[in-house]
Amino acid sequence: MESRIESLQTPCLLLDAGRMRSNIARLKKHLGSLGVPLRPHLKTGKSIDVARLLMAGPTGPATVSTLKEAEQFAAAGVRDILYAVGIAPTKLPRVLALRKSGVNLAVILDSPEQAEAVAAASRAANDPIPVLIEIDSDGHRAGIRPGDKLLVEVGNILHRGGAELRGVLTHAGGSYDRPGDDAHIIAAEQERAAAVQCAEQLRQAQLPCAVVSVGSTPTAHFARDLTGVTEVRAGVFVFMDLVMMGIGVCAVDDIALSVLATVIGHQRDKGLILVDAGWTAMSQDRGTARQAVDQGYGVVCDLNGKPYPDLIMSRANQEHGLLSLRANAKAELPELPVGTLVRILPNHACSTAAQFDRYHVVEKNLVTATWPRFSGW
Amino acid sequence: MESRIESLQTPCLLLDAGRMRSNIARLKKHLGSLGVPLRPHLKTGKSIDVARLLMAGPTGPATVSTLKEAEQFAAAGVRDILYAVGIAPTKLPRVLALRKSGVNLAVILDSPEQAEAVAAASRAANDPIPVLIEIDSDGHRAGIRPGDKLLVEVGNILHRGGAELRGVLTHAGGSYDRPGDDAHIIAAEQERAAAVQCAEQLRQAQLPCAVVSVGSTPTAHFARDLTGVTEVRAGVFVFMDLVMMGIGVCAVDDIALSVLATVIGHQRDKGLILVDAGWTAMSQDRGTARQAVDQGYGVVCDLNGKPYPDLIMSRANQEHGLLSLRANAKAELPELPVGTLVRILPNHACSTAAQFDRYHVVEKNLVTATWPRFSGW
Repeated sequence: MESRIESLQTPCLLLDAGRMRSNIARLKKHLGSLGVPLRPHLKTGKSIDVARLLMAGPTGPATVSTLKEAEQFAAAGVRDILYAVGIAPTKLPRVLALRKSGVNLAVILDSPEQAEAVAAASRAANDPIPVLIEIDSDGHRAGIRPGDKLLVEVGNILHRGGAELRGVLTHAGGSYDRPGDDAHIIAAEQERAAAVQCAEQLRQAQLPCAVVSVGSTPTAHFARDLTGVTEVRAGVFVFMDLVMMGIGVCAVDDIALSVLATVIGHQRDKGLILVDAGWTAMSQDRGTARQAVDQGYGVVCDLNGKPYPDLIMSRANQEHGLLSLRANAKAELPELPVGTLVRILPNHACSTAAQFDRYHVVEKNLVTATWPRFSGW
Repeated sequence: MESRIESLQTPCLLLDAGRMRSNIARLKKHLGSLGVPLRPHLKTGKSIDVARLLMAGPTGPATVSTLKEAEQFAAAGVRDILYAVGIAPTKLPRVLALRKSGVNLAVILDSPEQAEAVAAASRAANDPIPVLIEIDSDGHRAGIRPGDKLLVEVGNILHRGGAELRGVLTHAGGSYDRPGDDAHIIAAEQERAAAVQCAEQLRQAQLPCAVVSVGSTPTAHFARDLTGVTEVRAGVFVFMDLVMMGIGVCAVDDIALSVLATVIGHQRDKGLILVDAGWTAMSQDRGTARQAVDQGYGVVCDLNGKPYPDLIMSRANQEHGLLSLRANAKAELPELPVGTLVRILPNHACSTAAQFDRYHVVEKNLVTATWPRFSGW
């Protein structure tokens, strides 16, 4: 049943369905032109309704960041799932239970210790757990560096030990830090080249490597050639956010998520407007702090989603947001009386969405659906 | 049923019951010596189990930061509740519904617009909504400044308009920014003096002011005299955290909350240890970034809660935490093999607790209970 945005209690999370559909279509079209399938990362949405729009079909493929996601999406019928955070040995019983229920669940790892544990668990359960070895393509976080002989060592432990060595995976997380089309094109090629090089290294050692998995929202959009890659992962592209805008991956009108808030006060001599959305709503992500334009805790828009010039949430307490003009703004503070509704665009869609248990789906300023989302592990 | 910490899935939230009890006893003893009752802020715990340990009795008094908290605690029998975030007019129907159910629920405000709305709602419902006028005692956020004639104007709108003008309230939020006993003693007196001055201003205008409510965890602990004050509010004192430690309000051994995490990898040449707790677990609170000692996203302890020298979570991604030694550390990176369990102390107890839906209550390293907690609005 449709209702007006004005009837919602604040703060709450709005999802602009049209923008989301455009974001999904844009990436699918680009990857289609390169001939590589998408394995969408479902950690951004954590919603089966969002997942169904992202996946090629009802059973996947999909990427997740927690076993809770794997379990929730499996319960909704997804069958091809990659759990893309380095496996902790104590989590293997849950992995095996999901696999036993019929889910083709794969894990990732980057150390001999983890490989031994996965191989041992595979043997004990008589179920070869599929594994992608994580590659470090840009010094971002985890993974084995291309050329490191550790790769073949880990591959051998898995392949000889009873696991299924399925391939390699990398994530160009460093691409979030560099703005501009050229930087993203270079990052995408670096990501591809590292993964393909490692796949070759395994194959030359007579080890299998069927899957070469790469991805991040910037590199997925800016890849010009994906030769040797078998799948691309991306997550935040579905909603986009101010961090992605700040590095040139989207425009402000592409951002599909916003937090609806109500003005509850003013400190006029300080140029402050208070709203009832603090960090419990926006999250404390300050991902734009290191970018050319610092958006504080978010960009403030009117009820139609149009940004007020230079108005940002400059401070966030638990349930209070403080709106003000950015430093050196030319605009004047808008007159927003107590009770005014505003929409605030997030720095980071994943972290702002994580603060809520549902999406209010909006089409042309009408609320057309409520979609549950989950969190936890 | 008791179980060992090692049997928990990570990440999860541990609550050291002994430390919590000591924290509660400490503040109650101090306020008892000053003869002023505590109206504990339940936003930190968001748990009826925690609330029952904090409140003077099963019906309150209590402070909350959302109407969801008011509704949840009311359902558990709490009857004396202060909703201490400036009221949005659109929330008044929920306030009236709670009051109709038998809850003595009071609201706060600092503007004529809000006062008109509350007075009109009181008249329409034939239920005088109790109101505390918010005072700005330190330029922190919201409120009317002492001496501003707006105070009497707002008071008159409420008192003549059909609401119940119950008193004044202030929160010395600025006290979080200044370390040291002397700074807290001064902040506490400033908070008290501002509230009492405003109460006198109302009384001189022939307006009622039964309640004079002050509080923050630093000022509550360091107040030396509370003459004229009728109640003290505080929230984070129940768990304490690294921000409170950083300004000298507690010691590291007083911090009752920690996040249990598992080591999932290493980048040895960079001095990094990876764990399976990222910002979804720790939150993105960086409250110690502006303090003398920056604790990153948290201080890393062993399974017994003893900090590893100079080991902090220096970076947090969605499900990855990166542990490293702080800059200029004299200690060496501890050898923590894959699978090692660590406990990470939070910067800000309110925001880290908000990432979880339950507490695992720990007594002498045994898990003795699981307490649910809620979130949302």
